[in-house]
Amino acid sequence: MEQDVKMVLDRLFYPRTVAVFGSVKEGKIAHQIVTQMVRVGYSGRLVAVNPKADSPDGFPQVAAFAGARSIGGIDLAVLALPAQFAEGAVREAGAAGAPVAVVITSGFAEAGNVEGERRLAAVAREAGVRLIGPNCAGIMNTANRLSASIEPRALPGRVSFITQSGAVGGAVLGLAGERGIGFAKFVSYGNRADLGEPELLEYLAADPETGVIALYLESVADGQRLLPVLAAAASAKPVVAIKAGRTTAGRRAAGSHTGSLAGADEVFAAAFRRAGVIRAAGVEEMLDLCDAFAHLPAPAGRKVAIVTNSGGPGILAADRAEELGLEPAEPTPELRAGLRDFLSERCALGNPVDLTVEGTGANYERVLRLLLENSYDAAIAVNVATPFLDSLELARGVIAARDAVPGKPIAAVFAAGQVVAKAVGLLQRAGIPCFPSGERAALALARLREREELRAAARRAARGPLPKPRPLPWPSPPAGPAGGPIPEPEGWAFLGGVGLPLPAHRWCRTAEEAAQACGQLPSPLVLKVVSPQVVHKSDRGGVVLNLQDAAAVRQAFAELAGRFSGSSFRGALLAEQVAGGLEVIVGLKRDPSFGPVILAGLGGVWTELLHDAAVRLAPVDEAEALEMLDGLKSAPLLSGYRGSPPRDRRALAALIARVSLLAVEYPGIAELDLNPVLVLPEGRGARIVDVRILTGF
Amino acid sequence: MEQDVKMVLDRLFYPRTVAVFGSVKEGKIAHQIVTQMVRVGYSGRLVAVNPKADSPDGFPQVAAFAGARSIGGIDLAVLALPAQFAEGAVREAGAAGAPVAVVITSGFAEAGNVEGERRLAAVAREAGVRLIGPNCAGIMNTANRLSASIEPRALPGRVSFITQSGAVGGAVLGLAGERGIGFAKFVSYGNRADLGEPELLEYLAADPETGVIALYLESVADGQRLLPVLAAAASAKPVVAIKAGRTTAGRRAAGSHTGSLAGADEVFAAAFRRAGVIRAAGVEEMLDLCDAFAHLPAPAGRKVAIVTNSGGPGILAADRAEELGLEPAEPTPELRAGLRDFLSERCALGNPVDLTVEGTGANYERVLRLLLENSYDAAIAVNVATPFLDSLELARGVIAARDAVPGKPIAAVFAAGQVVAKAVGLLQRAGIPCFPSGERAALALARLREREELRAAARRAARGPLPKPRPLPWPSPPAGPAGGPIPEPEGWAFLGGVGLPLPAHRWCRTAEEAAQACGQLPSPLVLKVVSPQVVHKSDRGGVVLNLQDAAAVRQAFAELAGRFSGSSFRGALLAEQVAGGLEVIVGLKRDPSFGPVILAGLGGVWTELLHDAAVRLAPVDEAEALEMLDGLKSAPLLSGYRGSPPRDRRALAALIARVSLLAVEYPGIAELDLNPVLVLPEGRGARIVDVRILTGF
Repeated sequence: MEQDVKMVLDRLFYPRTVAVFGSVKEGKIAHQIVTQMVRVGYSGRLVAVNPKADSPDGFPQVAAFAGARSIGGIDLAVLALPAQFAEGAVREAGAAGAPVAVVITSGFAEAGNVEGERRLAAVAREAGVRLIGPNCAGIMNTANRLSASIEPRALPGRVSFITQSGAVGGAVLGLAGERGIGFAKFVSYGNRADLGEPELLEYLAADPETGVIALYLESVADGQRLLPVLAAAASAKPVVAIKAGRTTAGRRAAGSHTGSLAGADEVFAAAFRRAGVIRAAGVEEMLDLCDAFAHLPAPAGRKVAIVTNSGGPGILAADRAEELGLEPAEPTPELRAGLRDFLSERCALGNPVDLTVEGTGANYERVLRLLLENSYDAAIAVNVATPFLDSLELARGVIAARDAVPGKPIAAVFAAGQVVAKAVGLLQRAGIPCFPSGERAALALARLREREELRAAARRAARGPLPKPRPLPWPSPPAGPAGGPIPEPEGWAFLGGVGLPLPAHRWCRTAEEAAQACGQLPSPLVLKVVSPQVVHKSDRGGVVLNLQDAAAVRQAFAELAGRFSGSSFRGALLAEQVAGGLEVIVGLKRDPSFGPVILAGLGGVWTELLHDAAVRLAPVDEAEALEMLDGLKSAPLLSGYRGSPPRDRRALAALIARVSLLAVEYPGIAELDLNPVLVLPEGRGARIVDVRILTGF
Repeated sequence: MEQDVKMVLDRLFYPRTVAVFGSVKEGKIAHQIVTQMVRVGYSGRLVAVNPKADSPDGFPQVAAFAGARSIGGIDLAVLALPAQFAEGAVREAGAAGAPVAVVITSGFAEAGNVEGERRLAAVAREAGVRLIGPNCAGIMNTANRLSASIEPRALPGRVSFITQSGAVGGAVLGLAGERGIGFAKFVSYGNRADLGEPELLEYLAADPETGVIALYLESVADGQRLLPVLAAAASAKPVVAIKAGRTTAGRRAAGSHTGSLAGADEVFAAAFRRAGVIRAAGVEEMLDLCDAFAHLPAPAGRKVAIVTNSGGPGILAADRAEELGLEPAEPTPELRAGLRDFLSERCALGNPVDLTVEGTGANYERVLRLLLENSYDAAIAVNVATPFLDSLELARGVIAARDAVPGKPIAAVFAAGQVVAKAVGLLQRAGIPCFPSGERAALALARLREREELRAAARRAARGPLPKPRPLPWPSPPAGPAGGPIPEPEGWAFLGGVGLPLPAHRWCRTAEEAAQACGQLPSPLVLKVVSPQVVHKSDRGGVVLNLQDAAAVRQAFAELAGRFSGSSFRGALLAEQVAGGLEVIVGLKRDPSFGPVILAGLGGVWTELLHDAAVRLAPVDEAEALEMLDGLKSAPLLSGYRGSPPRDRRALAALIARVSLLAVEYPGIAELDLNPVLVLPEGRGARIVDVRILTGF
């Protein structure tokens, strides 16, 4: 990252002098911050700045100043004063040498005061001060006991959490504290008038104290800038993200909350996937995943063993594991025989392996070792304890198994409450995460595995045929009326020119041209009206099918010319009629934040009723296009279903990949819909039979 | 319920004398039970029974006996001795007057010892002793401090929990203890050699101390006996159930765990729906729902308001609420104006209403009241606290709002941990459940609403045209070869005879008969081979379509006769060819546990790829059949989609209802598939065009 930004953030997280601006009377936010700084045990120099140079109530040891210039050597300024004084304070901080200010003060863009925020940022630039905030909840760094925040104090740990919402930050810290999950660094960045996700992610990706990055987002300012930083961070260490505002209600609220529009959810999903980011549905799930990623190695495959001392909870874990695409496979006969060597008939040797009353620490260890050393990729150790069971001994058995097979993840579910509190503590200190239920342990393991698969896909894409834009054989982008689709003959010519598969066709301005073209095209033929005023051609009788000869073509042309004589009739497209194709939709759109996006799905009811379409950031290569197709619910229809032939998936994938490149090569294309593309049986390719291209950039 | 069973269960839960059978040396299960009984504070008479009349280690005050006969007046025997001594102990208990024994002892059917369990049950019957267990984890009744169990002690409360798995019972009690959720009664019934869900549900439905019933099931012994009891219980009070073994892995494990097969998951879902039982996905969800049902009134509709002091968590709640079918609608302009009267511009007045720093107790109260008194059916109050916020004051505001609008449910989300512990305690004592996240609060409210909707459907069904079996106008059930389908002519005749819609048709044994029948039927016609050896007629060229006259029919018959001369050719069905119908599948099956089941869905890919079929217990009435159709993903195809006409849904619903009656009227029908049924445009009915009936009962 840029060296100066790194230096700024180093001083943000490791300041020798922190100055808190604002009233330090009891109950005021600046007072709360000083209280937290002192209680958490910050060991640097802490000073307060306010007009009367009041020392904070109850903290006479904290030096106070009327202005900052006289202090000198400030590393971090924390602003918690009314909005109208923020600009002055930033100037003061800059004059006192502070390279960065955390602006907790609210009353800016989030409250409609966009101009005030713009001025604050300008003043900060002028004063050489970078900003976190405004309208944020502060920062923490557990390594040096820095807590310039009003949120609950973080325990030390390996997770670093950056959050757009200060309140979500507080909720996560509170929940994490209850579960004993610790943090390295915490940043609530609020309105991100200056520093935001890109700088913070880049810093944390290189931060040796950070093992996992957690991220809470409601919107992004610039998706195309964020994406490469996200991808780099996610390749360096696991990144777990919540994107709020998934549904319409959520999106509405996200809009009104931050004064910025939330991007469409599917595009976010595509961006996270591309970057290798794991998405969490809510704060509890995010904490589960952070705990798992912070402590567990990645599973090499999807085969998971469940070892339990009680059937029910083991079954619930197996149910959920299978739902999530893990494989809770039964032990092989050989493995079963190995288990039976030391387990009596009362133990059920399926998956789960139910140890019943034979669930001693030694047996947990032996069973987990035997399964993980023989073909299982991960395990869930379930112990449902009674007040009379020595859960500590069981925990020791689980830890011993992990030590014996350190490369494979074991998640623990020790239920519940007081009777297992000590055992859970022991497991957590040993680096084995404990989940409240087998279902949640299964989800964590599934996401560990998914990250590996996303990374493998990214490596494959980097090795394989590059999706990088390269010049296409068409001299110039098509031009169309602003806001409207370009005429169909030009659209077809363009697509043909860039090497996309179209049926053989001719554009004919007269019946005579059409009759002549007839001889050069394979019949049967289809004739389609060309008119800028006719959009839904079929519905308006603008398409004539099954034309076998020149006479029929001539007559059809005349009919169209008559029918559309009042509608700027420009002629007709005469094309080979494609038979036996499966209808597919391929589309290209530009997301305001993440840029070009490619969509593919089966036509008709599949996309319209079931929203069964795959969305990815463009461009994609053929391998990723195939992956898009494989993920569709309707995928079996492409592979050959109920006697219908397998379709030419490779040709379709090539088409999708090429269309996705157009977005990069031709920035003038705003939107493109190929609907339908007809996919023919294997080896026979695909044909685009309807084209709609919007320009306007 | 039967008076004697009620008396037995009264003595089970309210015993004056409890005798614990088994070794009471430290570490033994009987000793653990005595320990728990004493610690929890059971105030009745507690005695120990073991061969040497040893008093329990550390409990000299507990009298001990070598045999039970000399004790007299035992109400409850608790058996925790080796399996081989269980029969003797049951005899002793019976002789000492015990009407019921809780058999914690394992080593019976769950370990393959089915015969031992059968003998134990027989001995108990002879001795006049009813059994809970064997292989169970005991019982609790918090009202009289009875805890004859080794599981964590339950706090007192309004939820009664009966569980097939003792371990799940323990896990739930442990988790509930952490969250402060209390129980009235707890029963782990293990292998249910005698008393099981039906008796316990009936008792708890009438138990004034039980407000909510929670149920954990892996399999049922007799679904048709359970169903009416479940329905009666769920009509008396909320019943929340987990059914484990949902997926194949889970089912496999459920099978091996209890020695009994788990029923198919869709049938369970249908049975729960019919009974009005709310299903929970796991133990945390079950506790969330129990807490909600125990304390909250039912919402009258789906409109939910979210009131928060922080955007992010409010948005996550709104996302989830919408996903679950609740309606987090924006406030009307009038309501917004009412809110703006006392809230500044910095508060966002959408849904969520984000109070930001104006989230005082008074404002929570005013906003919640205003929204709930004006068109909202339920609310979620979110407070994300900092260590410096007085959450107790906010809790008081929420409680005041609830007191002002007591008929509408308010769920609270106070996050998180220590900073809100006191406020959460205050809310819980006031009867307002607190959830760990807005997402979980939303789920609880959604399920509260769903129970109302299930009850409304049940009331409507009870009022409306009865689905009760009534004689159908066909004298006798069709007979077919055991295990095979009955011949198609008989099948068609039967369906026609019971009033189901078929195309006009004739069964013809010769070409001559076919040619003659031709004149009596509307053309075009279709001719189908009839032969017990030809199942997939179309695939084998056994169907000829588009026959317009007698000559064509005669020729087609001759062709079929020739083509199938080697395959027991019996003739052909000549039928009116139905055009323009939408293909639907209607089927009937018998579940080994719950009995007849009716299925309906759209044909082809919808059922095969998407499993888009509705399953209900048979019979159903027309209203329920319409509800089945409305719930399909493919429902829009029936209502008229993309220019295709609306279909005759009422005719299809009538057909489904009538088919569902056949299961009741004709026990000889094992399975019936109508595939396809063609549904014509509105007003024109539906026609069954392919029939497959299996007999064999």
